Amino acid sequence: MNAAARPVRVAVLGAGTVGAAVARLLLTRADLYTERLGRPLELVGVAVRDVTKPREGLDPELLTQDTAGLVARADVVVELMGGLQPARGLIEQAMRAGAQVVTANKQLIAREGLELEVLAAECGVGLDYEAAVMAAIPVMAVVREALAGDVIRSISGVVNGSTNYILDLVARKGVSFDEAVRRAGDLGYLEADPSEDLEGLDSAAKIVILARTAWGIPVTLADVRVQGITGLTDIDFHNATGMGKVIKLVASAWRSGTSQRPRVEIAVRPVALPQDDALALAREGANVVIIDAESAGPLRLQGAGAGGEETASAVLADILRAARRV
Amino acid sequence: MNAAARPVRVAVLGAGTVGAAVARLLLTRADLYTERLGRPLELVGVAVRDVTKPREGLDPELLTQDTAGLVARADVVVELMGGLQPARGLIEQAMRAGAQVVTANKQLIAREGLELEVLAAECGVGLDYEAAVMAAIPVMAVVREALAGDVIRSISGVVNGSTNYILDLVARKGVSFDEAVRRAGDLGYLEADPSEDLEGLDSAAKIVILARTAWGIPVTLADVRVQGITGLTDIDFHNATGMGKVIKLVASAWRSGTSQRPRVEIAVRPVALPQDDALALAREGANVVIIDAESAGPLRLQGAGAGGEETASAVLADILRAARRV
Repeated sequence: MNAAARPVRVAVLGAGTVGAAVARLLLTRADLYTERLGRPLELVGVAVRDVTKPREGLDPELLTQDTAGLVARADVVVELMGGLQPARGLIEQAMRAGAQVVTANKQLIAREGLELEVLAAECGVGLDYEAAVMAAIPVMAVVREALAGDVIRSISGVVNGSTNYILDLVARKGVSFDEAVRRAGDLGYLEADPSEDLEGLDSAAKIVILARTAWGIPVTLADVRVQGITGLTDIDFHNATGMGKVIKLVASAWRSGTSQRPRVEIAVRPVALPQDDALALAREGANVVIIDAESAGPLRLQGAGAGGEETASAVLADILRAARRV
Repeated sequence: MNAAARPVRVAVLGAGTVGAAVARLLLTRADLYTERLGRPLELVGVAVRDVTKPREGLDPELLTQDTAGLVARADVVVELMGGLQPARGLIEQAMRAGAQVVTANKQLIAREGLELEVLAAECGVGLDYEAAVMAAIPVMAVVREALAGDVIRSISGVVNGSTNYILDLVARKGVSFDEAVRRAGDLGYLEADPSEDLEGLDSAAKIVILARTAWGIPVTLADVRVQGITGLTDIDFHNATGMGKVIKLVASAWRSGTSQRPRVEIAVRPVALPQDDALALAREGANVVIIDAESAGPLRLQGAGAGGEETASAVLADILRAARRV
């Protein structure tokens, strides 16, 4: 350890639930990170829309509305603003300036990740986004690294906690579907635009990123056959229960085609599963993913797939990884 | 990709179930690995005790009894012989010659891993052993990397498939304990020395390696309170069932002490768990581990924790990781 070495300068863009948690943990765990990294990780600033709004645990001097200026003085830029712009422009600015980039921006990576990967390679910097897919569940690392010597056959999972909360409420508590959707909304479990969750778009973004990583094929959201849960009725749930089944919104991707012309099929759709199926056992907001590889066989990963603090755990691991490259 | 680049020379020591699978897969997936690595991974030899014994899928010219000579001409040495010696001596020879080392040798790492880590650091080489703990379940990678930005609170799991097979047979099929042990032996599920499994020593080795990695504290097997399953009787199982519980052999490690004087507690023991507990749901030879971290919350990993091909999956990921350092 060499705490006297030049610190790695970290800029956090955005102070929503995830950004605030990341900034706070960078400060409270500073000694731990210095020890793990061998040099300090210094939070040089947090870009926010309104610097006058008080933020618990964050020195107001760290806050800035000059996002581009903050990006210019960081070794690692952590984009947690969400949305396509200005997030993408700031990431590009960071890469061109030679900074490492970490993001949890699922929609940006699903839609424009291929181009950003190309730019990262051109600039010789890293682009890490473990937190963009299922928060702290380390599914990207497993697909990319733990199975680096294997051949993945398929990936399937319950990857959206909000819809799972709704489906679980209907299946296990006998609540009507409409009422379950209302309760999820009241609890703040649905996005401002609830169709993101209910129509399966959130699940589609996650599975497309996983499929791209697993097979190195440049698939896009347009390759996903998506069916959400809004078309379901109480009769569907009644019928499923009658057959001893449980309806889950399942995102899946699997290899097809030949080894000469490899293809990937990707789908998001409600599926009636046997009650003892691993995916059927996902309760409330839990996320579960099963990765099946030729040698490893099926690996199951389960945990909290959302939440500010949980997502921050994955972002912080990516920040340490990025900092090692500085 | 640059297939014309100098190949990374890989030596495999041992051609048991795992060694044979690794050697075969290095040959059959050669093109894939060249593509992933950007240069070829060349299997330069497989050290065996008897070169005259035919090995399916392996060119006899690759076999050698001159293990030290093979080690001397490799960039990555993959130790899959098991046992403490000569495995340790060969690993030391490899490190001193500047080779990267990959091993699946659980007992060696549990007993002498601390010294080998020191030697690896002195020699400036890597020592990777994901496969030593729960085969293809990427628990080492999760503890070491995915949670690198987090603080692990506890690790607990059903980490020995043989004893779980026995306990599951008793709990779900009503087979007597003695009969279940006999069946596991007949099926080849127990080690040549069955006390390794039944007395909890295999589980102890795994949890001590995980604890060391999670908290960076140099714990040894002597720090584990171990109780196996041989003391259990049919009355214990009867009582557990009567209370709606399931007996599992649980390996666990958790932080104790203060932040100034951190300590780790480690235990392996039979525990009666509620039927819907995540560990109670481990069926047959399955392995399950739950890692609980401050920010991430509980992460559950489940899969095949043993088997030649499954272990080979983890060994091959480690070989690719090691080859990137060459």
